Amino acid sequence: MSFNALTPELLVAFEAIVGPAHVLTAQRAEAAATADAYADYGRDHTEDFHFAPDVVLRPGSAEEIGQIMRLCHENRLPVTPRGAGTGLSGGALPIHHGVVLSTERLNKILEIDERNLQATVEPGVINEVFQNAVKEVGLFYPPDPASKGSCSLGGNLAHSSGGPKAVKYGTTKDYVLNLQVVLPTGDIIWTAANTLKNSTGYNLTQLMVGSEGTLGIITKVVFRLLPFPKQNILMLVPFRKEEEAADAVSAVFRAGIIPSGMEFMEREAIAWSSDYLKIPLTLPEDIRAHLLIELDGQDLDELYKEAEQVYGVLEHYDVGEILLADTAAQKDDLWKIRRNIGNSVRYNSVYKEEDTVVPRAELPTLLKGVKEIGARYGFKSVCYGHAGDGNLHVNIIRGELSDEMWNVGLRQPISEIFELCVKLGGTISGEHGIGLVQKGYIGIALKEANINLMRGIKQVFDPHGILNPGKIF
Amino acid sequence: MSFNALTPELLVAFEAIVGPAHVLTAQRAEAAATADAYADYGRDHTEDFHFAPDVVLRPGSAEEIGQIMRLCHENRLPVTPRGAGTGLSGGALPIHHGVVLSTERLNKILEIDERNLQATVEPGVINEVFQNAVKEVGLFYPPDPASKGSCSLGGNLAHSSGGPKAVKYGTTKDYVLNLQVVLPTGDIIWTAANTLKNSTGYNLTQLMVGSEGTLGIITKVVFRLLPFPKQNILMLVPFRKEEEAADAVSAVFRAGIIPSGMEFMEREAIAWSSDYLKIPLTLPEDIRAHLLIELDGQDLDELYKEAEQVYGVLEHYDVGEILLADTAAQKDDLWKIRRNIGNSVRYNSVYKEEDTVVPRAELPTLLKGVKEIGARYGFKSVCYGHAGDGNLHVNIIRGELSDEMWNVGLRQPISEIFELCVKLGGTISGEHGIGLVQKGYIGIALKEANINLMRGIKQVFDPHGILNPGKIF
Repeated sequence: MSFNALTPELLVAFEAIVGPAHVLTAQRAEAAATADAYADYGRDHTEDFHFAPDVVLRPGSAEEIGQIMRLCHENRLPVTPRGAGTGLSGGALPIHHGVVLSTERLNKILEIDERNLQATVEPGVINEVFQNAVKEVGLFYPPDPASKGSCSLGGNLAHSSGGPKAVKYGTTKDYVLNLQVVLPTGDIIWTAANTLKNSTGYNLTQLMVGSEGTLGIITKVVFRLLPFPKQNILMLVPFRKEEEAADAVSAVFRAGIIPSGMEFMEREAIAWSSDYLKIPLTLPEDIRAHLLIELDGQDLDELYKEAEQVYGVLEHYDVGEILLADTAAQKDDLWKIRRNIGNSVRYNSVYKEEDTVVPRAELPTLLKGVKEIGARYGFKSVCYGHAGDGNLHVNIIRGELSDEMWNVGLRQPISEIFELCVKLGGTISGEHGIGLVQKGYIGIALKEANINLMRGIKQVFDPHGILNPGKIF
Repeated sequence: MSFNALTPELLVAFEAIVGPAHVLTAQRAEAAATADAYADYGRDHTEDFHFAPDVVLRPGSAEEIGQIMRLCHENRLPVTPRGAGTGLSGGALPIHHGVVLSTERLNKILEIDERNLQATVEPGVINEVFQNAVKEVGLFYPPDPASKGSCSLGGNLAHSSGGPKAVKYGTTKDYVLNLQVVLPTGDIIWTAANTLKNSTGYNLTQLMVGSEGTLGIITKVVFRLLPFPKQNILMLVPFRKEEEAADAVSAVFRAGIIPSGMEFMEREAIAWSSDYLKIPLTLPEDIRAHLLIELDGQDLDELYKEAEQVYGVLEHYDVGEILLADTAAQKDDLWKIRRNIGNSVRYNSVYKEEDTVVPRAELPTLLKGVKEIGARYGFKSVCYGHAGDGNLHVNIIRGELSDEMWNVGLRQPISEIFELCVKLGGTISGEHGIGLVQKGYIGIALKEANINLMRGIKQVFDPHGILNPGKIF
């Protein structure tokens, strides 16, 4: 793909579309003493990458985005769509420079339809803002990535983000009924209808979800919602052996229980995060890992019955003293520790995060393999994640690794980790996406025939290849 | 698209691939006195259509299908894939003749993985056979179309079939993790991985599901499963006003209850089916419609609590005496009546079935509109369906309608019904697919830009357009 550069004429045309206040450039930012804020449009939460955009546009409507895309399509100008910039695979990085198209102004909850348990929202709405808004009317939007307080729903759609509740409730993809999308050519479509079922042509909705901003720009979303589960129970279970923690995950499901959270944290993960947050936590010497198990529902008695069954399963393992969270504050603290592992790792060191995923019963084998590969290549990793989904986040710590090892040497062990995932029936990303940083490994997960189909689809949607170029494949 | 005809050389080549016993032609069937069975390959359960294939192939493996497709691709021979032939939109009809490729011999359950709550099956397995097999080990595969005793899982995938349990558990698409697919060119791919989450490239899995056999031939499926819900409660609620029955559906959900079945049957539907089955049912003069409501879970006490809440909601409506099914036999009878409405209508008259779907709270408006349109154009309809999903099956009864009215005159009122669906936020098929019979109406549901994207995708998968030509668009 060859692209054209931004011209003064295009800049004027962009100003006419979105208004001068919403056309940002490095020069203007410099003049307005907002260079730092401008620089943020060139990075996300992936390692320490930065790529400078030629221009940042902040459109206010699908129609404006349509006009922008038409111009960029005709002029072969690369466009990188951007939500809140919390992505972990580099999907929002403008590696070919050109336009960064931010959806930050599309931040309205347009309708909460209590009759149909649906909501229509714009992509720039922050996940937690949306969750809270529907909760106020007794409804529930389950997908809750660790970054829920800062990530946008548009970004969640781009990667089909999960979160702790995915184990019971599924990921973002399972809540999308219909999408308004601006195609790379500037056409605006709705992908489906506002219905729970739809057998009317190919599933363009699910083709958009997880396509990491390479096929179109989502401008409105119709989500389905659930009644809010009024009760929950949360327990923290310490294990003396990592593999037993991973093994217990499968055993709980086999007992017929579907927890609403089933999180794995190895010792380092929970220790770093509780230190970082200054939330004291007793951590006996012999404890190697924890499971954080949540049960939810409408009836507390019923949940206590389920909790007893979980205790029954755990009796077969070498566990320490189980902490049953008594108060809302205690529950908050435990979840805060879990959610801040990523931040605490980032606070300690630059790191690479691998978003490995396998069938859940293979988790012990994966964990063992990751540690064995780390030992062989001399790197340390902090592992945690959504064990109920078989989704293990492997954080490789930079620590004292040389530039050579960090930039080149790690490719081999990371490939080995991913090959192990595939061998176990899994793949290389469960919820973070491929983006930029996993692109080099896509051949481990996908055969040439699959990639050719994807390239063909990309070509149908984006004949000039201008939308988020250089990502996924 | 122009296609070539079957040649004697191709027939010999097909015999070499699948064996002579699995290559059927009209002549051979005549000679073997199996002409009736052969003719069945030219029809499905859609009205009274029949199209004669040139040859029927019954391959035994993905590899054989790969070889067949390569030959057909090179020779531009049309191929119509076929499951059990129970489809209601004409998807399996070989309208361009050529090859009918039956998956009937791919009928093995390859693995039930109790550790991961997954199963790997071939597409020719009958839905109910699979349900029963997983139930034996305490697991649950929810999608259950009315034809579950005779429809194949491959056909279910082709249309993302639903069934009564979809309201709580979703449709076929929600249980598919990974598909082995033979592409129209003969290449064999897996679409994803055996994981609950996957953000690794475009979602080819969901692109295949619901594509009605136009993009590839599914040869293996990895399904996720749930723990089997041990308890259920079933109630039949008679209403004196159709619209109140439809309205009560929404009210139950707003009360925070998600039933595992929420079926609507107008008077005629339940009357015809109980007559047809000779299952006696008291049906007072003033009853216009019924809701069949099922609750399921692991704990009977909990279900009785929920049932009380449902009774509380129903108090606000003009209902007759609620029948709470006491025994397994009584439950079976009620479900049998619901499942056999289609058969009872077919027994009485040729009919056209429209698979309308709207957001569930719009169901009363849709039902009223259908009856109003029927009155205006002089046709009778029997309406029933999955009210919890807003999915209303409208059976237009042939009765005394003239050939002219049946073949041409109904197009206008059917268009009006579909336009009403779209106006209400719905679409023209919830679970039966577009196939042949709804193709003429696709423009009501989909804009030109959507259809162009779909045609582009079709072209990527099937450059010669040989797979199930003439369907959907």
